[in-house]
Amino acid sequence: MRISELSARAGVAIPTIKYYLREGMLHQGEQTAATRAEYDGTHLRRLRMIRALLEVGRLSVASIKKVIESVEDESLPTHEMLGTAHYALSPAVEPEPDEEWQAARADVDALVEELGWDVHSDAPTRDELAQTIVRMRQLGVSIDLAPYAEAARKLVAEVEMGTIPFDGPRDAAVEALVLGTVLYGRAFDALRRMAQESESARRMTR
Amino acid sequence: MRISELSARAGVAIPTIKYYLREGMLHQGEQTAATRAEYDGTHLRRLRMIRALLEVGRLSVASIKKVIESVEDESLPTHEMLGTAHYALSPAVEPEPDEEWQAARADVDALVEELGWDVHSDAPTRDELAQTIVRMRQLGVSIDLAPYAEAARKLVAEVEMGTIPFDGPRDAAVEALVLGTVLYGRAFDALRRMAQESESARRMTR
Repeated sequence: MRISELSARAGVAIPTIKYYLREGMLHQGEQTAATRAEYDGTHLRRLRMIRALLEVGRLSVASIKKVIESVEDESLPTHEMLGTAHYALSPAVEPEPDEEWQAARADVDALVEELGWDVHSDAPTRDELAQTIVRMRQLGVSIDLAPYAEAARKLVAEVEMGTIPFDGPRDAAVEALVLGTVLYGRAFDALRRMAQESESARRMTR
Repeated sequence: MRISELSARAGVAIPTIKYYLREGMLHQGEQTAATRAEYDGTHLRRLRMIRALLEVGRLSVASIKKVIESVEDESLPTHEMLGTAHYALSPAVEPEPDEEWQAARADVDALVEELGWDVHSDAPTRDELAQTIVRMRQLGVSIDLAPYAEAARKLVAEVEMGTIPFDGPRDAAVEALVLGTVLYGRAFDALRRMAQESESARRMTR
């Protein structure tokens, strides 16, 4: 297909496509004349992945480049490639040097161990959860995370993992991971607040 | 207690306390001398609630004033007072006039009906979920929300509702609702991404 068709089908403006080509984020098309190149499904798929990372994952162009590097490094196993995209979605959390932080981080590590989860010791999610626990302690919110962990595991294993095409093209898997992570996260958050309203109504009006 | 002690115990600077007093967000202390007023536990509780709304809930001062109005309106049942704080925490979503939106919103209404949940027909969470469904459809993400709804209901009913002191002071209940809603939401999000990493590792390395 011509660049105009690629643009229309991907929903990405032509100047933006040209920018991605210049930056090496999108592979060149097949040159069929001096001013004409032919693009195919692999270009469309890459553009969809970039859009998902940019618009839904809200990643910076610098982070997207890192994800693309790992997609293109075929020596990297799929799990680690997906890990790169996944870690890029995590908010950056700076560990703090105080005891309160260390205690919370130790609690996170103990929880992961107890759950038997296979989470890298450097995963940013460990610090992210530690930070939330510090905040809960400071504010006197009771902490009972086991039911949340179990609910998360169940939803991920029974629903979300089924939506990721592990055996298909690598950028399609990244796209599905990012869209699923962010959009199911938003849906759950809205549903949880609906459940709060409903349960509150039930308790108060009975 | 004096304003300096109130400041230290609430973790709110004296000029900020004076601002809240001027704006009517905090009730006046008991004047014990021309330049001295005495504050008590009700002031401390109100400051804690304001901090929770501001720092954890990220509400604007204008929204906080609305919540305070409903806390002070004793004729408002507790459930409706909490609803005001709760709705203020929802991201503002503008319904769109097109068919895609109408269809998604109708699906949300059908889901709530099917679940038998007691959620107001004007609740902002309905539009929020509709917007997420529109996005999922546009991006080709499969939609199976029933397991998410059930998990949300269970966590809210079995864990979160127990943390809200429905029978205590009204501002303590609002504080607990806001802290619980936001912080448990963050904790769940981190746990869900950990579960994704773990399940992905299990599938790919087996």
